[in-house]
Amino acid sequence: MADSLKSLAGLTCPAPLSTRDRVLLGHGSGGTLSAELVRDIFLPAFENPTLAQLNDQAVVRVNGSRLAITTDSFVVNPLFFPGGDIGSLAVHGTINDLAMGGAQPLFLSVAFILEEGLPMQTLQRVVDSLKRAANDAGVQIVTGDTKVVEKGKGDGLFINTTGIGIVPEGIELSADRAKPGDKVILSGFLGDHGIAILAQREGLEFETTIESDSAALHTLVAQMLKTKHDGGAPLLAGIARSGNSEVCTSGAIRCMRDPTRGGVSSTLNEIAQQSGVGIEIEEETIPVREDVRGACEMLGLDPLYVANEGKLVAIVTPEAADVLVSTMRQHPLGREVRVIGTVTEKNAGMVTMRTTLGTTRIVDMLAGDQLPRIC
Amino acid sequence: MADSLKSLAGLTCPAPLSTRDRVLLGHGSGGTLSAELVRDIFLPAFENPTLAQLNDQAVVRVNGSRLAITTDSFVVNPLFFPGGDIGSLAVHGTINDLAMGGAQPLFLSVAFILEEGLPMQTLQRVVDSLKRAANDAGVQIVTGDTKVVEKGKGDGLFINTTGIGIVPEGIELSADRAKPGDKVILSGFLGDHGIAILAQREGLEFETTIESDSAALHTLVAQMLKTKHDGGAPLLAGIARSGNSEVCTSGAIRCMRDPTRGGVSSTLNEIAQQSGVGIEIEEETIPVREDVRGACEMLGLDPLYVANEGKLVAIVTPEAADVLVSTMRQHPLGREVRVIGTVTEKNAGMVTMRTTLGTTRIVDMLAGDQLPRIC
Repeated sequence: MADSLKSLAGLTCPAPLSTRDRVLLGHGSGGTLSAELVRDIFLPAFENPTLAQLNDQAVVRVNGSRLAITTDSFVVNPLFFPGGDIGSLAVHGTINDLAMGGAQPLFLSVAFILEEGLPMQTLQRVVDSLKRAANDAGVQIVTGDTKVVEKGKGDGLFINTTGIGIVPEGIELSADRAKPGDKVILSGFLGDHGIAILAQREGLEFETTIESDSAALHTLVAQMLKTKHDGGAPLLAGIARSGNSEVCTSGAIRCMRDPTRGGVSSTLNEIAQQSGVGIEIEEETIPVREDVRGACEMLGLDPLYVANEGKLVAIVTPEAADVLVSTMRQHPLGREVRVIGTVTEKNAGMVTMRTTLGTTRIVDMLAGDQLPRIC
Repeated sequence: MADSLKSLAGLTCPAPLSTRDRVLLGHGSGGTLSAELVRDIFLPAFENPTLAQLNDQAVVRVNGSRLAITTDSFVVNPLFFPGGDIGSLAVHGTINDLAMGGAQPLFLSVAFILEEGLPMQTLQRVVDSLKRAANDAGVQIVTGDTKVVEKGKGDGLFINTTGIGIVPEGIELSADRAKPGDKVILSGFLGDHGIAILAQREGLEFETTIESDSAALHTLVAQMLKTKHDGGAPLLAGIARSGNSEVCTSGAIRCMRDPTRGGVSSTLNEIAQQSGVGIEIEEETIPVREDVRGACEMLGLDPLYVANEGKLVAIVTPEAADVLVSTMRQHPLGREVRVIGTVTEKNAGMVTMRTTLGTTRIVDMLAGDQLPRIC
């Protein structure tokens, strides 16, 4: 009797309250639960016009300069993985959030939360990697902080990096600017980071080692922002000719995002919702490495929901799409760039995909948490 | 035999290696171990002129503006305590680090690391408090981030705040500027925060509830920076008259620090070392509340080593000391301000104290960790 009650209890759905009154892993997923947390707790408290734009970076004006500010904590597990580690990731992730706003990254702060007992050698390895990534990207680490928590109250080490950059005048990239007819550009293969982490964490072996795509995208973005028409006429966000000099103008790139937690599906859903447009993508154009596709199939994952750490999605005017793709292809981080879809008037707020079978399906935001602690 | 070996092993001092090859709680104390971590791991890796100044904030030049940047993670335990909580503390602490550089605090980023299972109500309470503290201080929260770690891999919640402010031209406050003859000013009672946390954590009860002094010091600092001679002549860091207008000059305040982790002793030791001077303080001038003094005596703590979160130490020219003290006394956070000591040429790099008994003793930096997770 007691046993059957127990098993019945086990079958009962959790009361709705239980998913609302405690923090779940999914609240850190970058998907619907994360969005709820922002909507229900953070936005009402901190409401201000800058925060309400919900971009990956804030752009504020200080003494005439347009300053971009972004912050990210990194709790990735494991600390080291093929293609990177928590140190390089903490640099790349924050640089990318600045770059997606068109900002030139300048400075980083770095704050560590260390767990008592962490081998000093591990810390040294992470610090070395962090330094190398910052040097390679040309950003300066200007200030820092270290806290230590008791054994069992942390997990090795967590890092927060906050980045500061400058946005040139005339560049206005924001997730609420997509317009029907715009094209959706994806800079390369999907899913590498998420699968690399998962494989490392679970001890999965594939024929080849799948490496994280962790990389700093700001030089790719800088190249995109300087792109011109073949004819030499000024084109993009944002360069126009003014007399003898080039000035920035609001241009052909509407917005950029790096599809990290929650994957491309969540990124596109956010843009569709914030711009009040539909987005239709074509399955056959979406680049996924063979081994990543295989791993996803084996694990029951959809590459559209898997995190990337060195990819960008750009929404651009239809006239600019081709020249941008050519420009990006010349950059090492843009070799596999594709136009993967179109912004539509219909299905506002939704993302749909024309599958390789010719059917159309809705691509939702990530619900729950596909892969916790991916970054 | 086995037993006696075991007990002998227990008596053996830990090998020196064991305090060097793993992270200890003391590495987060703000004392000597923290200083070692910075010296041995962080500075060699991230060496650059801004970081090498070892101030609580970096000051960098961006398009002509002097930007102050500071970052702090907060891991205080418990989350709520008399006089504040982790939310208000995360605002005050970062504002104070900006203010100590003479910066006007403008923007904060806020990043949460939540432990799975945290009651949503707890998060809401912290967020509300954080918002209130930011509003009260007139700083804007412009961007944020949330990560979630599995139950047992965190401790409720950790917060990182990174602050950005503007330093007016002419203001140069730095811990390497103290000169023999300068006076040491302390803005009020020592030890309130540390004892409030400890009492709450350990369930200690005193006749009165000891409250944390957690407060934002930027308005007190602003008042100090505007102080003038009685005669109306320009005096301080840094106001001088230039034609019809007042301009900032390098002035009578050499440096300011908020004595948090490691207490006043560690703060003064840092200044003595960075400036290559001695600092001599007078025990009888150091203000400590009766109940805090009693608690310290009971617990075997020295108030000089206990953390404060709403106090500042200023090193000022001898000519400016009196007028500064009068100015500070008019501010609610400066009512108990005192001159507590003098900068000396002798004993360079050391802090000494003339005790109430008339003897002189060395005041070292905090060694080990007196009170872990105080902020």
